[in-house]
Order: sequence, then structure tokens, then C-alpha cells
Amino acid sequence: MKYIGVDVGGTSVKAGVVDEAGHILVKGSTPTLAKRSYEWVIQDIADLCLRVARQADVPMEEIESIGVGVPGICDMKTGIIPFCTNLGWHDVPFVSELQKHIDKPVWVENDATVAGYAESIAGVSAGTQSSVFITLGTGVGGGIVINGKPYSGAHGIGSEIGHMILKMDGEPCTCGNYGCFERYASATAIIREARRALKSHPESLITEACGGDPDSINAKIVIDCAKAGDATAMEVFSEYVRALALGIVTLINAIDPEVIVLGGGVSVAGDFLLDAVREAVKPHVFYKGLPYADIRLAKLGADAGIIGAALLGRR
Amino acid sequence: MKYIGVDVGGTSVKAGVVDEAGHILVKGSTPTLAKRSYEWVIQDIADLCLRVARQADVPMEEIESIGVGVPGICDMKTGIIPFCTNLGWHDVPFVSELQKHIDKPVWVENDATVAGYAESIAGVSAGTQSSVFITLGTGVGGGIVINGKPYSGAHGIGSEIGHMILKMDGEPCTCGNYGCFERYASATAIIREARRALKSHPESLITEACGGDPDSINAKIVIDCAKAGDATAMEVFSEYVRALALGIVTLINAIDPEVIVLGGGVSVAGDFLLDAVREAVKPHVFYKGLPYADIRLAKLGADAGIIGAALLGRR
Repeated sequence: MKYIGVDVGGTSVKAGVVDEAGHILVKGSTPTLAKRSYEWVIQDIADLCLRVARQADVPMEEIESIGVGVPGICDMKTGIIPFCTNLGWHDVPFVSELQKHIDKPVWVENDATVAGYAESIAGVSAGTQSSVFITLGTGVGGGIVINGKPYSGAHGIGSEIGHMILKMDGEPCTCGNYGCFERYASATAIIREARRALKSHPESLITEACGGDPDSINAKIVIDCAKAGDATAMEVFSEYVRALALGIVTLINAIDPEVIVLGGGVSVAGDFLLDAVREAVKPHVFYKGLPYADIRLAKLGADAGIIGAALLGRR
Repeated sequence: MKYIGVDVGGTSVKAGVVDEAGHILVKGSTPTLAKRSYEWVIQDIADLCLRVARQADVPMEEIESIGVGVPGICDMKTGIIPFCTNLGWHDVPFVSELQKHIDKPVWVENDATVAGYAESIAGVSAGTQSSVFITLGTGVGGGIVINGKPYSGAHGIGSEIGHMILKMDGEPCTCGNYGCFERYASATAIIREARRALKSHPESLITEACGGDPDSINAKIVIDCAKAGDATAMEVFSEYVRALALGIVTLINAIDPEVIVLGGGVSVAGDFLLDAVREAVKPHVFYKGLPYADIRLAKLGADAGIIGAALLGRR
């Protein structure tokens, strides 16, 4: 049996035909054009699914199910997506709408959750039963796997680890709270702190690297400057790592997964980030001397969304 | 079949014979006298188990297993308790030592975890599949139930929710970190903040209630003064509730259980606490308008430890 996995993003929709082991046979994409009514977006998703199946030479009879990762949540009892901010969706009857075009079982999950699930089946946490995947991007997303299955909580609203409160009364968050984990562990946090630091340290390499325009700073620029030994960039990076590590400590003390996987844009910093995070977590774990989660870098990259969504049908 | 449940505390050991439904048939206790070598403590535990079985008129052949809740953790692969700070235990081969006296399967779990499990079987969260139990005492303990089973993580070090970091760089914690949840949500936090507040508000009712001796302040005094309308006590209580609520928000956003149960000493404040916490959580939940964990007061009280430990054998 084969599965189709769909990764719905604000800019583009990606889809692929995936086998039992989590390998992508064929993939393709189409622009989301999210401003249209949802019916058109979902029709394009259906067309993309049919196209990749055709290109993979897999007849639809051999497709077990369609899995979809969305930047929001879905109530699988009703098949309705109550919120999907990036797409401007509100109470969209996603499952029934997609099934108007393709008569297959449809599974929908949060995009970070499916990416974490993909890593636990075919990626860096393959073979483990429990893991927490942390996407370090514009925000911070989370994918929890428990007992080998994607875990999104009793009401489907869990795994929003970017909105664990790390610093009560800290930086204001887009969610309305203060001090959320993502205010300190996202690429956005690196950019914010670099801009602040440049005010007192204009001599930093970052100034040159961003062409003198603080609006051009991104996380890669800051991390590259830190790698090059720039003191200001290093300070921003160290503080970032410290906050990320303390959020990971919360996850270890509460959920204690086998593995914690770092993914998303910031994780392309590679071992420079990984080594620093591992060092920063160690002294803060509650039960010192006992084994705790191994921290690893994601390895499926942008394909994780398609693979994880597809494998939802294997449950 | 019947089960024996044992609740090992720093001062006393309690044990009871428990039926399938989680009802205690007979219970008893013995002083822990933890300063002795662990062999003697465990011998007393075994004697207590045999005694309650005799008093319940249940022959040992009808006892399925012995479950034990300890203020620490146990590695069930080896039967060794690596840490149990209150008892001064370090690498104690608990299971084999107890089995020298009683040849039955022995299950050991963290005491807050078994209390939460008890509530989920025979208490306020009965019938639910997932819950987080929060003990609001000298510290803050946690008991997580997922898929109807006690959850203590991949390495047995999870559910230490008192050591989630709620305020990075906040109050120093006994664990060595700063700003742990229990520094804000324990009875200890109420006492600390009341003492601080009395310095600028000696006119508070608390002064009279503690006989002018700040060392005599306890959480009950402060909450009773808040209930009586004392402004200083109310301020301490409100700030306590706010921090507790933000920790609960972290649990909802990450784990999203069906129910969150408040237990431990502070929870005897009853609806005065519960109503305030529910109100304080509501505006901070990430997915506004969607259902989230119902917050409830524990109802098994001190028996939860015996019941939950006993029912470990039902797994």
C-alpha cells in the first residue's frame, strides 16, 4: 500500500506519494494562494494528490489514505479545522471538502506534529517510541510522539510547546501572553536580540554582514558571525542557546522523551548549535547523573511534512 | 484479586489492601525512621503489608501484587531506586529487597504519579484517559496519566512538573535552577511572599493570625486571611494563583490533558482556590474558544497514595 502526504503551507502546498517505510516516490507542489475561498484551495490540493499519484504510476486504488499537515489544528471527530491562522481559515470542513474530490480516508494533523512523527519513523529518531520535535523557525512549533504515535492531546490542542511559558512577565508574544518559549527560542528572537545588541555594539561583524541595515538581519547572519568569533554575535547566540536549553529542560522534566529533535531554520546551524545546546542542558536536568533525552538534529528537512502526513494513515 | 498499596513518606509508611475498583479494605501505618539502613525500613514495609492483609482477612495467595509510591523514582528495569532524597536513599535495590520478605510482583512509582493515577481510577478524574495531577505542597509534584496509564517518561524521570521553568532567572530553586514552577506554586511560595509582604504591610490580618511571628506563617493562614478579605493576603493569593495558572497554561499548551487535578496541602482551600485558578487560566490558553482541560480538586486526599500504588498492579 502507498500513502499520499500533503504539507499545506502559507505559500505553497507540497504533496508526495510515500511508501510504508516513509520513502517519497514522487513529489510535487502548487501555490497555496490562500486568499481564495477554501473550496478552491482544497480543489487544488486534490488535483495535486491525483497528479503525484499519476506521476508515481500508482493507481488511486493502491492509495490507502491521504494525510495532511496544516499550520493549525483539526478536530478529527468532525473533520473541521477550527483555526489555521496563516491560511485565514476558520471552521473549514476540510475532510468532507477534500473527500468531495477524492474518496479516501483523510487524516489531518498539525504540521509540526507530522514532521516530528516523520522523524520518528524515517528520520533521526527512527526506532524510538517517544520524542519531542522542536521547530526553530519564525516561531517555535512542537511535535510530540508518545508510544510511537503522534500525540496532540485530549482536545487536539497540545504540543504547542512554543507557547509554554518560559519567562513569566517576559517578552510579549503574538498569542497575547508574555514570556512564551518561542519569544526566546525562535529565529525571531535571535534577530530581535541582535538588533538590540547592535545599538551598543555597532562594531560587530553583524553590521557589515547585514549591509548596515538591521532590517536585513536574519538568524543565519547572526550565527555565521558567531561562528566567525564575533563577540556580540556570540553573546546573542549564547543567550539564545541558554533559553532554548531551559525550555528543553522543561520538556525533559515534564515529558521525559527518549529523544529531542531540533528542526526548522535555526537548526541548519548544525553541530555548532547542537553541541552548545547539549552542553547547556546538562547542568540543568533535575535528576543529575541519570539518563535523559538524547538531543539530535532533524534530518528529513523540508520532506518531513509530506512523509509524516502520509504516514498518519499507517496508524 | 486484591492488591497491596504502600505510600512511603519521610515520616511514616502507610499501606492498605485495595480491591479492583480502588477501594481500601483495611489500612495501617508504621513510622519510617528513615535514618536506619534501608534494609530495616524495607523489612518494616514488608511487615506492614503482611499485617494489613491479615487484618483484611485476605490470604497472601489472593494478593496479586504490591505497589509502592516513593518520593523519588525507580528504574523498573533493575528494581533499583537511584534517588530518594527525603529518605536519604541512593541506589537502593528496593524490589529485590522487598521480595526477600514477600514473594510477589512489586511495582514502584513516584508518589505524585501514583496519587494522580488513583484519582484517574477512583477519584475526581475517574473515567478519563489523560490527566495531570498537581500536588501543591512544600514543593510541587506531578502525576501524569496518558492512555489511562501512569506516565513517567522514557527514562522514568518525567512528570517532575514542579521543575518546569516558569520564570527564567527567577527565584532560586532547591534543584539548582532558577524560576522553577514550584518556586511560585507551592505552599512555600505563599509563605515566602506573605513574609515579604508583611514587611511593608504589618497591618495585615496575617500579623495577628501568625501571632506576630512570621516564622509561624503557613499557607492556610494566608489563604484564610485572603478569604476574610485582607488586602495584603489577597494580593499574595492572587499572585500565587496567577503563577499557578500560567504553569497550568504550559501544561495545557504542551500536554493538553482531559483534566488537571489540584491536590496537596494548598488545595484544601477548596473552591476559593479552584474558582480563582479557572478564571486565571481562561484568558491565557492558546487556542481561545476551543475546549481545554477541566480543572478540578482532588478528592481522595491522603488515601490517593495507597490506592494508586496498589492499582499499579492492575496494569
